[in-house]
Amino acid sequence: MITRTSALERPTTKQPRTDRGRRTRQKLIDAATAEFGEKGFHDASIIGITGRAGTALGSFYTYFDSKDEIFRSLVQELSDAVKERAALALVPNQSALDAERSALAAFLEFARDHKEIYRIIDEAEFVDPQSYREHYERTAQRIEERLAEGIKSGDLRPDIGEVEAWAIMGMNVFLGLRFSVWGADADHTEVSRAANAMLATGIASRR
Amino acid sequence: MITRTSALERPTTKQPRTDRGRRTRQKLIDAATAEFGEKGFHDASIIGITGRAGTALGSFYTYFDSKDEIFRSLVQELSDAVKERAALALVPNQSALDAERSALAAFLEFARDHKEIYRIIDEAEFVDPQSYREHYERTAQRIEERLAEGIKSGDLRPDIGEVEAWAIMGMNVFLGLRFSVWGADADHTEVSRAANAMLATGIASRR
Repeated sequence: MITRTSALERPTTKQPRTDRGRRTRQKLIDAATAEFGEKGFHDASIIGITGRAGTALGSFYTYFDSKDEIFRSLVQELSDAVKERAALALVPNQSALDAERSALAAFLEFARDHKEIYRIIDEAEFVDPQSYREHYERTAQRIEERLAEGIKSGDLRPDIGEVEAWAIMGMNVFLGLRFSVWGADADHTEVSRAANAMLATGIASRR
Repeated sequence: MITRTSALERPTTKQPRTDRGRRTRQKLIDAATAEFGEKGFHDASIIGITGRAGTALGSFYTYFDSKDEIFRSLVQELSDAVKERAALALVPNQSALDAERSALAAFLEFARDHKEIYRIIDEAEFVDPQSYREHYERTAQRIEERLAEGIKSGDLRPDIGEVEAWAIMGMNVFLGLRFSVWGADADHTEVSRAANAMLATGIASRR
């Protein structure tokens, strides 16, 4: 298990200062995504990462102290990427429910294009439990904030909050597992539509 | 990763034939739950399991061939336990939505009492991927069957199916993670009520 340094102690001196440095760091992160995604944390190696990245071993240590540290950075970057992808999918003046449908559709596409995200984030439960928990707590928090906006605009029931946010997150994660990772031929528009209809008005018959 | 034997090849000769044998096997399974839940698959050991169970090492090999095999049996038993707990919670002549609420409430209690279930089933994604996938596919299948009953009885919209089943499963899994594993002081009755209200009639405002 990764020994945790607090956010304040996180090394910031190792951030690249030049465009070239940023490109090299990004190459290492992309290579680590492939290496951890394919081999899992224990069998992945720094040599494997630099080999995939086509960089010298020294470059790795310019930006990361250890395999643990690049794994932690990667979980953070994947978590940020999920967040950014959902944010990009939102359209100004969308209804709150359209926003949830857009966010789910964007996530399903993202998960289909980055299937390794499940394996890496799920492995964080064992390798770096704090990052795992933070990823889901932050994601649920953002959904709850979107729901609060929807309550304010009058789109959503005023009595919803944390339970509904966690329920929506779970729904999205498992729809991604089923329809992006395990069954990548699914019609994501139709999956998002059906899930959104359930979210909007439920599954009770309209007798 | 566990080398898979097909269901037909699964050793059935090692099933206990006496009550005493069944008790010993159950002791080993319970001890394995604690051992894998605490230490994770890689650090868990057969010695650790028999030590916890208070049985001789030979007893282990009477019922299981290896650490892999007891892990696979355990995932299967936990999966069956989740299924049975949900089934027990169902009341004859309940509405389809009440059935979903009962199933969720039962799962939240079960997860609170058996927090290690998350760690063990989640670790199966890496140690025994086929069992992991089967657990979720079977669980979703059962939810879909309950939904089909609800459609037949007229409780539920006729156009729901697999997408909604996976969405409900994801909702339940993440509500358990948040309100049974990470925040065990939650009011499960209230969590189940809120999640069920969302499932029944959605989160759109009733303007």
